[in-house]
Amino acid sequence: MGIRVAVAGASGYAGGELLRLIAGHPHLELAVATGFAQAGSKIGAVHPHVRSLRDVVLAPTAPGVLADADLVFLALPHGESAALAAQLPESVKVVDIGADFRLKAAADWTRYYPGPHAGTWTYGLPELPGQRERIAASDRVANTGCYAVSVTLALAPLIAAGVADPEDVVVVAASGTSGAGRAAKVHLLASEVMGSLSPYKVGAHQHVPEIKQATGATSLSMTPVLAPMPRGILATVTARPLTGADPREVLAAAYDGEPFVQVLPEGQWPHTASTFGANAAHLQATVDVDSGRIVVVSAIDNLVKGAAGQAVQNANLMLGLPEAAGLTADGIAP
Amino acid sequence: MGIRVAVAGASGYAGGELLRLIAGHPHLELAVATGFAQAGSKIGAVHPHVRSLRDVVLAPTAPGVLADADLVFLALPHGESAALAAQLPESVKVVDIGADFRLKAAADWTRYYPGPHAGTWTYGLPELPGQRERIAASDRVANTGCYAVSVTLALAPLIAAGVADPEDVVVVAASGTSGAGRAAKVHLLASEVMGSLSPYKVGAHQHVPEIKQATGATSLSMTPVLAPMPRGILATVTARPLTGADPREVLAAAYDGEPFVQVLPEGQWPHTASTFGANAAHLQATVDVDSGRIVVVSAIDNLVKGAAGQAVQNANLMLGLPEAAGLTADGIAP
Amino acid sequence: MGIRVAVAGASGYAGGELLRLIAGHPHLELAVATGFAQAGSKIGAVHPHVRSLRDVVLAPTAPGVLADADLVFLALPHGESAALAAQLPESVKVVDIGADFRLKAAADWTRYYPGPHAGTWTYGLPELPGQRERIAASDRVANTGCYAVSVTLALAPLIAAGVADPEDVVVVAASGTSGAGRAAKVHLLASEVMGSLSPYKVGAHQHVPEIKQATGATSLSMTPVLAPMPRGILATVTARPLTGADPREVLAAAYDGEPFVQVLPEGQWPHTASTFGANAAHLQATVDVDSGRIVVVSAIDNLVKGAAGQAVQNANLMLGLPEAAGLTADGIAP
Amino acid sequence: MGIRVAVAGASGYAGGELLRLIAGHPHLELAVATGFAQAGSKIGAVHPHVRSLRDVVLAPTAPGVLADADLVFLALPHGESAALAAQLPESVKVVDIGADFRLKAAADWTRYYPGPHAGTWTYGLPELPGQRERIAASDRVANTGCYAVSVTLALAPLIAAGVADPEDVVVVAASGTSGAGRAAKVHLLASEVMGSLSPYKVGAHQHVPEIKQATGATSLSMTPVLAPMPRGILATVTARPLTGADPREVLAAAYDGEPFVQVLPEGQWPHTASTFGANAAHLQATVDVDSGRIVVVSAIDNLVKGAAGQAVQNANLMLGLPEAAGLTADGIAP
Repeated sequence: MGIRVAVAGASGYAGGELLRLIAGHPHLELAVATGFAQAGSKIGAVHPHVRSLRDVVLAPTAPGVLADADLVFLALPHGESAALAAQLPESVKVVDIGADFRLKAAADWTRYYPGPHAGTWTYGLPELPGQRERIAASDRVANTGCYAVSVTLALAPLIAAGVADPEDVVVVAASGTSGAGRAAKVHLLASEVMGSLSPYKVGAHQHVPEIKQATGATSLSMTPVLAPMPRGILATVTARPLTGADPREVLAAAYDGEPFVQVLPEGQWPHTASTFGANAAHLQATVDVDSGRIVVVSAIDNLVKGAAGQAVQNANLMLGLPEAAGLTADGIAP
Repeated sequence: MGIRVAVAGASGYAGGELLRLIAGHPHLELAVATGFAQAGSKIGAVHPHVRSLRDVVLAPTAPGVLADADLVFLALPHGESAALAAQLPESVKVVDIGADFRLKAAADWTRYYPGPHAGTWTYGLPELPGQRERIAASDRVANTGCYAVSVTLALAPLIAAGVADPEDVVVVAASGTSGAGRAAKVHLLASEVMGSLSPYKVGAHQHVPEIKQATGATSLSMTPVLAPMPRGILATVTARPLTGADPREVLAAAYDGEPFVQVLPEGQWPHTASTFGANAAHLQATVDVDSGRIVVVSAIDNLVKGAAGQAVQNANLMLGLPEAAGLTADGIAP
Repeated sequence: MGIRVAVAGASGYAGGELLRLIAGHPHLELAVATGFAQAGSKIGAVHPHVRSLRDVVLAPTAPGVLADADLVFLALPHGESAALAAQLPESVKVVDIGADFRLKAAADWTRYYPGPHAGTWTYGLPELPGQRERIAASDRVANTGCYAVSVTLALAPLIAAGVADPEDVVVVAASGTSGAGRAAKVHLLASEVMGSLSPYKVGAHQHVPEIKQATGATSLSMTPVLAPMPRGILATVTARPLTGADPREVLAAAYDGEPFVQVLPEGQWPHTASTFGANAAHLQATVDVDSGRIVVVSAIDNLVKGAAGQAVQNANLMLGLPEAAGLTADGIAP
Repeated sequence: MGIRVAVAGASGYAGGELLRLIAGHPHLELAVATGFAQAGSKIGAVHPHVRSLRDVVLAPTAPGVLADADLVFLALPHGESAALAAQLPESVKVVDIGADFRLKAAADWTRYYPGPHAGTWTYGLPELPGQRERIAASDRVANTGCYAVSVTLALAPLIAAGVADPEDVVVVAASGTSGAGRAAKVHLLASEVMGSLSPYKVGAHQHVPEIKQATGATSLSMTPVLAPMPRGILATVTARPLTGADPREVLAAAYDGEPFVQVLPEGQWPHTASTFGANAAHLQATVDVDSGRIVVVSAIDNLVKGAAGQAVQNANLMLGLPEAAGLTADGIAP
């Protein structure tokens, strides 16, 4: 008899990944999964790959059906978590995969999202210094954005160590299509995406304030690119060096012993395919011979370390379970 | 302290998948993994996705390094298993992923493979009637071919029930590129494959005699197609009906209770993506309105149910472990 | 001053391909292009790749704007061509890319399409015996279906020559996603399609009666498969032999001198990538060693020889232009 | 009777694209095409998509077979052009697609390439100020690198206008796999590439000195990424602004009237798919709201504007033909 967890918004890609991870988790059991248009459908029809939960019927997304779970995962569209969370009993722990509670400054929220700022929850990135303990002590945790985790893991230790200049950070990050969600849109059709790379939200992406908040960067340009693959984020993060320190050594020291963040052996660069299905971030760093800039490349699976896997990692901490329970750092390739 | 297993030929795709499954298996531990050109390399360099075994060094492929394992998985090029198997002690159980010991008739072997016929081992498809018990009682088991399992699961029960005519079976089966192995060949380059479908070995494929042997088909045409995806086989199997029976019901009855073979709900057709990373076969069947032919479609992951997952399933049976240990029917999608 | 042609339904994929071919055609000029939801938008916004027409604004789809063109291409949803065509002056030549006027038997139409049968126009496949002349003498021509052309070119000469048995034809044909059109649907999202093969309309496809009508097949099973690529159809056509004739020689003789249908050298099998962007069909045939069945594989670009290119080829004939004007048999690869 | 051109190194991807463009060129005819391992093979076997030249046999790559052409395209591995070019008569015009003659400084050459620096030819980028005339007056022209053209077109006008700071340029550019050539290598296998993004040559790419030479940048970091698509380069170029000028307006003015370089309408960002098969570069620019950096995104087809198409454009100029002869700015999509 496991700990009973609920997934609100289970019909999307992050929700489906939560279902897959919960189905394979040794200590968690699915109390209820909810959907909107898909309420009433079986999981086997919505997510044919999650065979072990195929006969579970999605309930409508309402506080009542979620209230008796030990922990609720919110996988709702940005801006919809706050209203629902407000109606859940305090006794229910909550991990929000959405953006609602990530930002400290209301101004940052209102710049990029509709509606008022709902507040700020514990930031769900256990690999940040001291954050693991804060998460374990929290009943409400805000998961990071998918781009944010890929960039923050690459950059935060370098700024904290005074090795990278927070004043001039340039990021180009490409994501697979699942990061754009499961809504039917022409620009996300396979015909439009296969064989094509396309930038979007150039010059103004909503993850920038989150990344600055999490890393201490004071000026950061990020250009997101949609890539012809279903999953994965590859982030190229460059910054001016402030010292002669080897950025790879700084990262290796920062993540020594971390189960899910790994600095690859010298000369081996991350491939997103190696993180497919894994709760893992792969990092490598060097100094550019021409410009002298620090270049860090980070690879994650946007649906796992970038969403559902990180959410389970946070839930494990909040529930007093082993942090790695139900998670693996091993990807599936090719 | 788990049961100690070895992987001979660990540098290829099937070998890498075995390493991933063994790393996550509750009862197995990796005694040794071997390679040819890659001997001396770390698994982290050869299979960057298998992080939990990253510091294991590949040994050369030789009987001595394999002899003290409880069970050896052979993931060698077709025709190379027999010589190595002959040098392993009888006390070591062996699962051969290659073709060497699948065929009963020497003539079938010599028609498609180089060298003499090595013999015949217990056929490693537990879902065939009575086969589960034979595998559990064997020390030497021959895994099926990847195309063979996808077609046999779709066809064998229909012929056995007298519902499908064994005299006129037509199969077209498309496979992802990992089925072609990891050798560097121009026609397997991403540039050549992406955006392209291409048939190969048309009119004469080496899996045909194996499929006939396993299904009872007496005349079978199979056209294999290379598809622009890394994994997955989609087999379309058609046959003349001998009765008015509903082929879907026959298959549903045949696989009732099977953990890894599932007939989908009526009207839901298999997608290879739903089986990605899973030890699962998804089946659906109907009768063509125009021709009256039975049409069965089968989807598997060629590296899991088509190779490494089936091998672990067989090993579990041979070792007296729960058949599903270390395996999941849940795929990873999208 | 070229011949003035119009494209009705220019915002879809077939319409976009017509615009591209018209833009490069030495004798045709675009009089008007129309759209529905996209009316009022510039071609540069709807089809960013068609740069040479980027400032042309799509007109609403109405008879009035089309009436003064010399020839109108109809690229409308199936079932919508008839009403529009009825309102065009007899003086305007029309090529319909839709299905409305392909079928001779009303019963075949009503079985697969909504609404009443509109009638039958000259069938637009110039490579069928005598058809080139009929098209040249017609003012109204119905383009073939994309699957239909790939299968008909492979099969018709073999049945006509008495070499293939029309009673037992089995086809499996896979298509790229552009064949499913540009409407936003979840199952066509890149996330759902990449890495996946999935069958659809199994056991009952609307192209079957068209193929039977065009080839003389009396019993035909066709299973369509959606493939993870933007363009291309690969059709595997199998039939029982009635004689010992070499099917490849029969096809080579049938298409000797045809500019756009080519039987490849013996042993070379078609790849869809080789037909990308080309008004070309590549064919190869053999006899299966085990079953003795004839196996023909056909590759086309579904948007060119399967739609827009064939439409231009027909228009060239109808307008007395060189049949190959503005068309090429050379594909773009890789 | 056209101008007789030769292609040395016709078996690779750039060579194949040259063959395709020459086959469709109104003024050029193929005198001879050569290969190394493929010498003696028909073009139909090496490049099945180039049907109109299918019966042409590749000659061995030797000065004698090239000497009587009016113009020779060299599509050889980097470092092999110089030796061959030295043996061609002065009367033969030459366009080198390789790197041998691009760099002015011998030190830049020796840093990244084997062997001695061969010299410097007229730089083959007609869209640079005054370059069109220099190319027209030259008998020897060095094509640009594929990354170089995508970055140079985006950056050169901004530095020339004093709008972008040449001291702090950061580039991340992703390329399809054809840019890596047709040699059989494991890391270029479809199984390894599909579904994956991977950086390479991080911190030291051989195109950097070429880009600095062509743009006037004094410090430039470029990170190349291999993308899961056959063609296309998407370059994201960022630089510090020196003035308040709108970078988009500067680029629009610089390329006003250029047939093959187009600044897209405001708000429309380049997609590589829109340039597929086209001799076109699509550009868009903005100023990042957070960092204030200029961000320019450039898309090309690496085999056309990045190689063969640019080579034909240069040849047209050198031969006194219309610059756009045999080339189109229209891509093929989807």
